[in-house]
Amino acid sequence: MKKILNQPAAYVDEMLDGLVAAHPEALRRLGDDGRVIARAGGALPGKVGIVTGGGSGHLPVFLGYVGEGLLDACAVGNVFAGPRVADCQEAARAADGGAGVLLLYGNYGGDRMNFDMAQEFLEMDDVPVQSVRVADDVASAPLAEREKRRGVAGLVYAYKLAGARAAEGASLAEVADTARRAADGCRSIGVALTPCIVPESGQPSFSIAEDEIEFGMGIHGEPGIWRGPLKTADRLADEMLEQLLPELSLVRGDRVAVLVNSLGATPHEELYILYRRVAQVLGERGVVPVMPLVGRYATSMEMAGASLSLLKLDSELERLLRAPAHCPFWRV
Amino acid sequence: MKKILNQPAAYVDEMLDGLVAAHPEALRRLGDDGRVIARAGGALPGKVGIVTGGGSGHLPVFLGYVGEGLLDACAVGNVFAGPRVADCQEAARAADGGAGVLLLYGNYGGDRMNFDMAQEFLEMDDVPVQSVRVADDVASAPLAEREKRRGVAGLVYAYKLAGARAAEGASLAEVADTARRAADGCRSIGVALTPCIVPESGQPSFSIAEDEIEFGMGIHGEPGIWRGPLKTADRLADEMLEQLLPELSLVRGDRVAVLVNSLGATPHEELYILYRRVAQVLGERGVVPVMPLVGRYATSMEMAGASLSLLKLDSELERLLRAPAHCPFWRV
Repeated sequence: MKKILNQPAAYVDEMLDGLVAAHPEALRRLGDDGRVIARAGGALPGKVGIVTGGGSGHLPVFLGYVGEGLLDACAVGNVFAGPRVADCQEAARAADGGAGVLLLYGNYGGDRMNFDMAQEFLEMDDVPVQSVRVADDVASAPLAEREKRRGVAGLVYAYKLAGARAAEGASLAEVADTARRAADGCRSIGVALTPCIVPESGQPSFSIAEDEIEFGMGIHGEPGIWRGPLKTADRLADEMLEQLLPELSLVRGDRVAVLVNSLGATPHEELYILYRRVAQVLGERGVVPVMPLVGRYATSMEMAGASLSLLKLDSELERLLRAPAHCPFWRV
Repeated sequence: MKKILNQPAAYVDEMLDGLVAAHPEALRRLGDDGRVIARAGGALPGKVGIVTGGGSGHLPVFLGYVGEGLLDACAVGNVFAGPRVADCQEAARAADGGAGVLLLYGNYGGDRMNFDMAQEFLEMDDVPVQSVRVADDVASAPLAEREKRRGVAGLVYAYKLAGARAAEGASLAEVADTARRAADGCRSIGVALTPCIVPESGQPSFSIAEDEIEFGMGIHGEPGIWRGPLKTADRLADEMLEQLLPELSLVRGDRVAVLVNSLGATPHEELYILYRRVAQVLGERGVVPVMPLVGRYATSMEMAGASLSLLKLDSELERLLRAPAHCPFWRV
């Protein structure tokens, strides 16, 4: 395992140490185990709090989106493992400015169970709570079983749009509605070229031949749609769009948010080569890409591969997408 | 070669196609070969133009820093190869708002030769030009031969500080002075864990055993200080600091900009584990880290590894570091 770390068991906590050391003006650590990241300034009175959580190893997802116009707090699990119920609760308390709390997270069994339990405890304490789960990965289940789909990079749009709505002073019901619309309108698919190594086990997340890729694979190595030889960037972009477009019913003149995301090792150069083809195909259909995001937004540590997410916009969603936001995770 | 691309020979141009397709409001392509990236809005009248250039394969370096409060134009070479003289000239013309042009780039032989030739042509046309080369990599030559050192991630600070000074309306001499002070005050060192593959050759940039790393290796695979078994993150951070601190003569109360940079595949999680130790050691010495940057700022495509850069600040440099800036390369 060729990684820059100390003890594998300390990977997550030392990463969090470094994170708050780097951004003390923006972020603080809470919880009896230090596994909650929240805005340094505390909850904003009167603003709906937005909370997320999930396993580590996906930076900037999840905790990287705690910031202005985005999230208020995040419960942090071990690598690829859900956060504890107590930390989900603690994150919600840290985010609670008196206007209620939205739990907004990816559709994974463990995360769902723990956030549901946290929600029950919070409601017993009369904290108004709503939950929205993002399930954007079309490769993880057919449309008829959408509730089984996993959440991947589409989370970023749900964070951004719900975060902007909350920053405007919207109610909990309104913020939850925006999050739901972002989640419902977004579709993603990924392609994996190499696995990553989970620090505590020292083992690759899956195995794959030197000339093979897996189309539709999940970010923890969950099985995809096909495994076979590497194809060209243009062919991969076309196949990704063939998976996403039928579910979005886009017509000429429609506007879509487009996210081309690296799963980790795949460099920015390759993402732009992918985006080039995505923009061509959308252009041929008369569909307008809006504020494309091309970069590392949801990763699996050093996994090589990429994902494509599309979100159909209306004028309100586009306004929220373009609203100012700031997280300390990347700076010029 | 497991990369997402079409024809290897089209790698750079298709990357640039995707880049300007993704950021049409911010960036445009110029030059008879399309190998110049400039601000979409053209040169800003009365502002000193800042131009850089270099080989491809290092995103966001170099072209990713074209933006507000940063660079005005960039000449783009093939992967790991310098830009053409004609493109250096074209970039300077695109950046020229009548107040002169600063050529600000890394200290590599080919880049230097081509920018020097471009400067001669520009001066023949009465464009006021100054050149500043960044040579921050302490592993590439001893202090006594500083002029032989290569430029690596320290470029980012030179871009940021000179860019902020130019945005304030400073003269060419003043902007060049700021760039020189940023370059003179910055020291960097890297550690490589794996090579990257150069698309056109399909070959790794160097070879290294599965359990070995190379300390001080350059971003194109240039030889470093030692090669040996992987060490812990804390030990690597300590050794990096042992290389950088003696040249900076920091005393208690000094303020330094700190950049922990991934060479590509190394994930954000590991960078924060490195930063944790860097902050500890600086703290023990009473040195204050200012606005630490932890992320991918200067890469070698999918190379695994990291670099550390330190820049000693005074009040003016800190003000320029904190000044607003925007490039379209990463967005929330």
